[in-house]
Amino acid sequence: MEIIRSNFKDNLNKVYEAIEEADFLAIDGEFSGISDGPSVSTLTNGFDTPEERYQKLKKHSMDFLLFQFGLCSFKYDHTEAKYIMKSFNFYIFPKPFNRSSPDVKFVCQSSSIDFLANQGFDFNKVFRNGIPYLNQEEERQLREQYDERRSQANGAGTLSYISPNATKCPVTIPEDQKKFIERVVEQIEDLIQNEENKNLQLEPCTGLHFTVCCRYPKGIHVETLETEKKERYIVISKVDEEERKRREQQKQAKEQEELSDAVGFSRVIHAIANSGKLVVGHNMLLDVMHTIHQFYCPLPEVSGLVSLQVIYKILLDTKLMASTQPFKEIINNTSLAELEKRLKEIPFNPPEVESAEGFPSYDTASEQLHEAGYDAYITGLCFISMANYLGSFLSPPKNHVSARSKLIEPFFNKNSQICKLSPYWR
Amino acid sequence: MEIIRSNFKDNLNKVYEAIEEADFLAIDGEFSGISDGPSVSTLTNGFDTPEERYQKLKKHSMDFLLFQFGLCSFKYDHTEAKYIMKSFNFYIFPKPFNRSSPDVKFVCQSSSIDFLANQGFDFNKVFRNGIPYLNQEEERQLREQYDERRSQANGAGTLSYISPNATKCPVTIPEDQKKFIERVVEQIEDLIQNEENKNLQLEPCTGLHFTVCCRYPKGIHVETLETEKKERYIVISKVDEEERKRREQQKQAKEQEELSDAVGFSRVIHAIANSGKLVVGHNMLLDVMHTIHQFYCPLPEVSGLVSLQVIYKILLDTKLMASTQPFKEIINNTSLAELEKRLKEIPFNPPEVESAEGFPSYDTASEQLHEAGYDAYITGLCFISMANYLGSFLSPPKNHVSARSKLIEPFFNKNSQICKLSPYWR
Repeated sequence: MEIIRSNFKDNLNKVYEAIEEADFLAIDGEFSGISDGPSVSTLTNGFDTPEERYQKLKKHSMDFLLFQFGLCSFKYDHTEAKYIMKSFNFYIFPKPFNRSSPDVKFVCQSSSIDFLANQGFDFNKVFRNGIPYLNQEEERQLREQYDERRSQANGAGTLSYISPNATKCPVTIPEDQKKFIERVVEQIEDLIQNEENKNLQLEPCTGLHFTVCCRYPKGIHVETLETEKKERYIVISKVDEEERKRREQQKQAKEQEELSDAVGFSRVIHAIANSGKLVVGHNMLLDVMHTIHQFYCPLPEVSGLVSLQVIYKILLDTKLMASTQPFKEIINNTSLAELEKRLKEIPFNPPEVESAEGFPSYDTASEQLHEAGYDAYITGLCFISMANYLGSFLSPPKNHVSARSKLIEPFFNKNSQICKLSPYWR
Repeated sequence: MEIIRSNFKDNLNKVYEAIEEADFLAIDGEFSGISDGPSVSTLTNGFDTPEERYQKLKKHSMDFLLFQFGLCSFKYDHTEAKYIMKSFNFYIFPKPFNRSSPDVKFVCQSSSIDFLANQGFDFNKVFRNGIPYLNQEEERQLREQYDERRSQANGAGTLSYISPNATKCPVTIPEDQKKFIERVVEQIEDLIQNEENKNLQLEPCTGLHFTVCCRYPKGIHVETLETEKKERYIVISKVDEEERKRREQQKQAKEQEELSDAVGFSRVIHAIANSGKLVVGHNMLLDVMHTIHQFYCPLPEVSGLVSLQVIYKILLDTKLMASTQPFKEIINNTSLAELEKRLKEIPFNPPEVESAEGFPSYDTASEQLHEAGYDAYITGLCFISMANYLGSFLSPPKNHVSARSKLIEPFFNKNSQICKLSPYWR
């Protein structure tokens, strides 16, 4: 299922449900580039220690953008003895949320872009329709902005016990604006006196909003609106107390929604993190690092301090699994496409997997490799084949080994050998 | 006219013709971003000296990609008393040419991308179908690579006077490859002896090509080919001298074409430069700097050393022109869209301009602002209106002032106040 900005909110509950019900999740990312320094092969296939590799990727890969995120949920149906799969393909872009939101710069590597272009990647879906996101710090800042505005409004509210005509006001008005504001106050007096007029439209002006709220805490509603051309103006209208409260509540609900929209795709990552479910990936170190960096918080400077489990509690890398006993001896090529083919042949069994109702199915025969949703899907297939193979060593042998089985625990969190849990990360 | 990679070669002569016949040219560029540091407005609308501005743009703007280039040629038809216009909208992308070609990294600024997305910009045309380019240094390097290969082949050719069975060969074969090469030589002997076999297919191997050429300068054609999967292999075939020469010529022609393809869009810039025609732009400093940086050579570190005229001999900036006497007093807003509207009104006259046959026409009523071809077009309109207005001061007044008129010379190269001609640039 393809998820872009316009259908994100409508499908978010489907995503949450898929995560909630899953036995395990598979993920994959597509990036605007891999390396701004050493060649890609040096960076990804070297004989580095995990720590060296982490440092290199942190230094040379984090300025690129993760702009497509594949998520595939797998739920085992015991009655039918098969997995039910739901796959999501998210397009992601850091669309600036408002004037004060971060204007993200990211790097593109022409060879990576060209590679994706040859696979038929749709860049318009990213740049025109990508889902925005905020990391935790950006979300906190935006929430603070809203809270500040609200407490300002509430502060004015407490003055409602003072006479509406009180002239003492705690805000200091700059000298050069006093005349303008006095003129506005006159206009407001007119508005209040004159029964025919219902509201008054003004240009925005520093201090004006607050002054008006102080002097007329009751019976007046002040609102800053934006034209279609993003020009801001103030509207003052006569309202009774009930209407004023209703409008305030409406405004607050709207702000809450705007905040949610801005957090955007990060909500999916939070849901995965909170689920505590097993998350499977293929050669997933870069995917996990990008996910933390982009949707969570900056990666720490000093290696050994990072727990990749900060967002994914249980990780399993199918490339590492295929390179470990008992698979190592019978699997030659651990590239995703080759591994998927190998794991359909003896001694492995092709896994029984079906798309959930209303979800598109992928055909492994007509490879859609390097679409993130598809890559996540076949990564899941690889995991199921390898997990089930481990069941053949049991007596009596088992055809199905669940994602919760003790048999697969030895393969958990091998990528995070580099990551000693530390007080820095919780 | 929209020009992408697939129709570039077929339309290049049309572009050359348009440049050749033009009275003047108008240009505009669209970029993947403007500033990686200060806010865009600080960078472009500051009260900096030209030199400070150059330094800021050089530092904060050059890592972005110029990915759409608009070129509009204007030719005055004296009989009809109107301009004939040809507009080209080029999509540009540094698609890597081969394994050893530069893998360009460029930065994207999300606010700029979002802005273009809102204008309906087609990013797929850039990233899937953009025309490649090389700067002068990259072109030189690629030409050298080809020359080296050719001189190697020619070097072998001069040995043709030596007996074909000469065992002395000027190339030193590494110890560990000697056996392999001896085996290949045996296979070639077989090929030559046996009338049934016509050619022999081998894996590539260092030194092999040269050895074979030395030992069998005549009657043998050695060629390195690539499979569809870009795996290289060597084919040795029996040919007579005539056939060998024909193949060499064929190969050389193919190389020449590959080189031209790789130079790509830079050929258009070279043609503009060589024409020496007046080039008009609106607020064009950034466009000109990007054009030099991307298609010509790196901008010099030290300011005051650069002549923007290195590629465009005569530059005229319509924003600067509109801000100068006698326009300054009667034009309030010099933004491109506003200027275009103003220059249709009294005391100005909307210029008579028509699209050439076979070229699409732009409608200024349904603004397609921020498509480079359209922006170049209305920049040209602005120039014509202002130039013609200068004719009203003549006695008797003139309705048409040509791009070659002395009247407009005072507005030439005002952007290049920063650029003292120096020995560094010619």
